[in-house]
Amino acid sequence: MSEPTPEALFGAFIERIEALDLDGACALVTDDVEYDNVPIGKSFGPDGIKAVLGPMLGPIEEVRFEVLRQVAVGPLVMNERVDRFRAGERWLELPVAGVFEVTGGKISLWRDFFDMRSFEEQLQGLFG
Amino acid sequence: MSEPTPEALFGAFIERIEALDLDGACALVTDDVEYDNVPIGKSFGPDGIKAVLGPMLGPIEEVRFEVLRQVAVGPLVMNERVDRFRAGERWLELPVAGVFEVTGGKISLWRDFFDMRSFEEQLQGLFG
Repeated sequence: MSEPTPEALFGAFIERIEALDLDGACALVTDDVEYDNVPIGKSFGPDGIKAVLGPMLGPIEEVRFEVLRQVAVGPLVMNERVDRFRAGERWLELPVAGVFEVTGGKISLWRDFFDMRSFEEQLQGLFG
Repeated sequence: MSEPTPEALFGAFIERIEALDLDGACALVTDDVEYDNVPIGKSFGPDGIKAVLGPMLGPIEEVRFEVLRQVAVGPLVMNERVDRFRAGERWLELPVAGVFEVTGGKISLWRDFFDMRSFEEQLQGLFG
C-alpha cells in the first residue's frame, strides 16, 4: 500500500482531532514529533501532544479546524485556519497558521502560530 | 518579459523591505492589497501598508526577514520566518507565519500571524 500524501495525512490527523480522538491522532505522528505552539513553547512525542491537548480538550464538546488556505510541497504542508472549540453554547474561534512536516509517513513537526492574548481572552469567555 | 513567479516576487518584496525601501516594496503590491497583521487588524492598499510600516520602521536601522520554511503553489506563498528589527545594538526577533497571494503579477494579500505580546514586550526592550 502506498503512503498517503502529506496533505492526506494531515487531513486524517485533523479528522481524528475533530472526533476528539487524541489517541487516534497521535498514532499518526512520529515518536519524536515536535509540537510547537509558538507563543507557549514546544512539546515532544505523542505524550507531549497529549499532555498539552488532553487537558485543553477535556471540557470541549466540539472541535472544528477550518482550513482557509493550504499549500503542500514535498514533505511540507502549510495552512491558515480558524480553529473552533465549543463548550456549551459558546465557541472560541482562533486564527492560526500551521506548519507540518512529514517524515517516513508520519507527522514529525506540527507548529502553530497564533496570538496568545486572543486565545486567553476567548478562553475566559468560554468558561466565564 | 515573463512575470516573476510568486516566490520570486515575494523575494523581491522582502529585499526592498530589508533595504528599508517602503516605496519600492509597495510598487510590488496591488492597489487594493490586503495587509493583515492578524492580532492587530487589516489595512488596505499601498497607503495602508505605509501607514502601518512607516512609523514602525522609522526608528529601525536594520531589518532581516529570515525565511525558515517556505512553500509556493499557484498564486500562494506561505512561509515561517523570524523577522528581526535592530535599533542601536538591540534586536527584536519575532517568529512569524506569512501568507501571500499574487494577482496579476502583484502581491494582493500579505497576512502575518504572530504573538502580539511577544512583539510588544520586545518593542519595550528595544527602546526601553
